[in-house]
Amino acid sequence: MLSLQSQTDARWLAMVAEHLDELLIDHAHCEKKAAGVAMNLIFHYVEDDELCREMATIVGEELEHFALVRDLLARRGIPFRRLKPSSYGARLHELIRKQEPDRAVDRLLVASLIEARSCERFRLLAEHVADAELRAFYAGLFESEARHHTAYVRLARHFASDATVNQRLAELSAIESQLIAEGDPLPRMHS
Amino acid sequence: MLSLQSQTDARWLAMVAEHLDELLIDHAHCEKKAAGVAMNLIFHYVEDDELCREMATIVGEELEHFALVRDLLARRGIPFRRLKPSSYGARLHELIRKQEPDRAVDRLLVASLIEARSCERFRLLAEHVADAELRAFYAGLFESEARHHTAYVRLARHFASDATVNQRLAELSAIESQLIAEGDPLPRMHS
Repeated sequence: MLSLQSQTDARWLAMVAEHLDELLIDHAHCEKKAAGVAMNLIFHYVEDDELCREMATIVGEELEHFALVRDLLARRGIPFRRLKPSSYGARLHELIRKQEPDRAVDRLLVASLIEARSCERFRLLAEHVADAELRAFYAGLFESEARHHTAYVRLARHFASDATVNQRLAELSAIESQLIAEGDPLPRMHS
Repeated sequence: MLSLQSQTDARWLAMVAEHLDELLIDHAHCEKKAAGVAMNLIFHYVEDDELCREMATIVGEELEHFALVRDLLARRGIPFRRLKPSSYGARLHELIRKQEPDRAVDRLLVASLIEARSCERFRLLAEHVADAELRAFYAGLFESEARHHTAYVRLARHFASDATVNQRLAELSAIESQLIAEGDPLPRMHS
């Protein structure tokens, strides 16, 4: 699904089900970071009109989700706080090559994979979490992540041929699946 | 008006009227930078719920304006490009104190002054530019800048007393007026 080469296993679901409050706080931070990534891409590739338009839409949607998660936390009396992130994002970002246009391709494809994994996990949460409000909440969110995934892959094609993008996406996706298989002891959206 | 201690003089209006294409390109960059400033404030003061909400709204509006200016440029066949900015923003940012909570107060008040000056100049353009489409364009934009100014000043009061914020705003505003009086040879929104 969505370029991912592995499915999340039951271990992750069991872990986060035990720490839903912490997962929700991490989720809020993930939305904020996703907005920040899209904003940075506007600054770095400002000449690319289509990229700027797509990123502006994504920034808006991620910040809207950020506010939705903050609202949910407030309704549940869960104090929002800073949280040590899982290692997943930083390890994926290390894979970004330094030279343009490779750098642009990698930044976009790494973002596309993070969106894809979020989409897969939001769907899992929508189907399996015991809390009905959270099931509905995640059911309402996962489609936008799938759209973002597709937008990022499409934009990567502005910077390299289709064949190059497809090959690099397969490489990065293989590593992404490996990181997910290794896991992370913290109960996080991407652990 | 809006905490500003000086009015833009006719010299600026005459300069930009001769270089409207360049002014519009600079305006697009200003909207992008304003969105970036608001996004950075979300990252730095993420615990402040009201700040995050206000900044999310401002990010959305600035990116919408960025797209509007890009559309206008495209309709007029003016190629969008990177542009050396005026020294105004960098010189204001140098005034931001390093220690919190002073830093937060100054970041918010500097942002408030930039919005105020934009508002004042959008209104001038709305009243005095010969081009009717541009007059209507700027008439549609200046109100949001006034709202942003007010929001930034209100949020500064989360980090210091009203008296401290008012005094610091007066200090920074005096320097802002001085920078505007010194001017900048480039035809820019804040030269």
